[in-house]
Amino acid sequence: MSFSSITDFESALADLSGPDPAAIAAAAARQAQLTKPAGSLARLEDIAVFFAGWQGREKPRLDRGRVAIFAGNHGVAARGVSAFPSDVTALMVANFAAGGAAINALAEAAGLELTVVPIALDRPTEDFTRAPAMSEAECLEALSIGASVVTPDLDLLAVGEMGIGNSTAAAALCARSFGGRARTWVGPGTGLDMAGMERKIAAVESALAFHANAPSSAFETLRRLGGREIVAIAGAVLAARRLRVPVMLDGFISGSALAPLAAVNPAITDHCLAGHCSAEPGHARLLERFGLEPLLRLEMRLGEGSGAAVAAQIVRSALAAHDLMATFAEAGIAGAA
Amino acid sequence: MSFSSITDFESALADLSGPDPAAIAAAAARQAQLTKPAGSLARLEDIAVFFAGWQGREKPRLDRGRVAIFAGNHGVAARGVSAFPSDVTALMVANFAAGGAAINALAEAAGLELTVVPIALDRPTEDFTRAPAMSEAECLEALSIGASVVTPDLDLLAVGEMGIGNSTAAAALCARSFGGRARTWVGPGTGLDMAGMERKIAAVESALAFHANAPSSAFETLRRLGGREIVAIAGAVLAARRLRVPVMLDGFISGSALAPLAAVNPAITDHCLAGHCSAEPGHARLLERFGLEPLLRLEMRLGEGSGAAVAAQIVRSALAAHDLMATFAEAGIAGAA
Repeated sequence: MSFSSITDFESALADLSGPDPAAIAAAAARQAQLTKPAGSLARLEDIAVFFAGWQGREKPRLDRGRVAIFAGNHGVAARGVSAFPSDVTALMVANFAAGGAAINALAEAAGLELTVVPIALDRPTEDFTRAPAMSEAECLEALSIGASVVTPDLDLLAVGEMGIGNSTAAAALCARSFGGRARTWVGPGTGLDMAGMERKIAAVESALAFHANAPSSAFETLRRLGGREIVAIAGAVLAARRLRVPVMLDGFISGSALAPLAAVNPAITDHCLAGHCSAEPGHARLLERFGLEPLLRLEMRLGEGSGAAVAAQIVRSALAAHDLMATFAEAGIAGAA
Repeated sequence: MSFSSITDFESALADLSGPDPAAIAAAAARQAQLTKPAGSLARLEDIAVFFAGWQGREKPRLDRGRVAIFAGNHGVAARGVSAFPSDVTALMVANFAAGGAAINALAEAAGLELTVVPIALDRPTEDFTRAPAMSEAECLEALSIGASVVTPDLDLLAVGEMGIGNSTAAAALCARSFGGRARTWVGPGTGLDMAGMERKIAAVESALAFHANAPSSAFETLRRLGGREIVAIAGAVLAARRLRVPVMLDGFISGSALAPLAAVNPAITDHCLAGHCSAEPGHARLLERFGLEPLLRLEMRLGEGSGAAVAAQIVRSALAAHDLMATFAEAGIAGAA
């Protein structure tokens, strides 16, 4: 899947397929026969049925799961909105490649592949407080790059990101998409002090004012306030939907990629699970807008797909129970209660 | 470790060792050097340092983790306090042995061994509404059976249980240990209806009244209101403490085993993590008394060690990040923020 025009993007967002009702029914029927009190595995049961629906089979699998991390740089970082300088983005991408980052360890622990996609790190987006972050062509390119990591053989796609300054873009995307003052969506990110927080709030306020009269389409919001890595996540999630690959969202920034899409078509998150709720205050608010209940609440605030990778293990548990448990009949135990 | 007298038990509970401060310091220092913003892995960092302290090494391991499920039958089950008849206990033990239960799948998914220990299933405890559940000898035997599953080579012990009627015993243990009316500790267990709930509350109230003037020692509370599988969990957790093996608690019933011990010496839960908070209403209250924040809140209510096994995967993530991540120096990134 690629996005060669804005129409491609808008068609994809307008035409979202649903899960397979027959697979959902079969998986739910199987759950009712497994040797446990009905409903006692609770969310593990829900996850198994969710995966059945999207994968279109009674017994879904997690043989091949991929964490895709997209990286980009941000013009707005020059405004002092991050605790780190922009060159840390490339240094962390090198660390991903060398296998030394948290996500390398967490993906391995969860049995997931890792794909790292740096996007034009030497060309930061424009400072969105005074210009659109990207041209239309750049935004389409980022969407297509995101879509390119999704292959039909994937059982799960986890999306992560790296980009100094990108929690400022995330806050701007959420505020523009769902309303609310800048201050309600801005948080300390990876460790900003109070003065930095004020600069970050000011940057988001400036951006909202600058783009106030722009078209409110999902594409324009992504292009004006997003970053390349964030837009790529939106492209990847759309491509995953087309291929019915379930998605595990990570933190506030990966979620913010869907905010402009969800404002237009709330069904965009139907094939997504929220891996965790991060310490970033806007994240809980965002997940509430999506109607997603996070699997984990561990106060993590790293990004990189780290929370999604940890949460993927819960999927593994859910699918193992669904696949391997005996039915009451197989175990010779009379009827479920 | 075995318990040949009440004095053995009381000495073990009075003399609880602490974690290794040098290993804690070394692990915390390592965390500060890993390539991530300080504290951004949050609870994953805490877990790594916790394991370092109890295992006594800077880089703790989870090579060998064991789920121990203890099973027992309860005289109080005759009072209609469960949705299932007592013979389901033995049927589920057979299901564990055949590999068909949830915990078989969940232990395998988490890379944990499984040990199933049925204790005298053909001899239910006495109905504790009108007699002590066990004799002193029976209670000591159950403690020793529990302790016997803990070997020094274990990196983690997860404790689970099976026993029709045992959430009634759990509620009685909690109410006796921490106070509060029966109704505040009784819940629907595996799926009790309203009439069953009233029978269960009545049973706990009767038990509290019958034993009101008994000695309030931890041993007497376990002996009078516990079940063999619950007492075995208490023995296993004490033995794990002696050997500095970290423990993953499961649901309300596994936690209730520690209630009488914690009432005497609150430090008993220092080497324990709460794997999850179950749907049983008393569980959140119990974890609050222990000062333990659960790793998962997935509304599970199965027991068998199921929540503990799922949560063990979070430990795996935490230790993998701690062990495998590069330091800032190794990655050539200048200083942590």
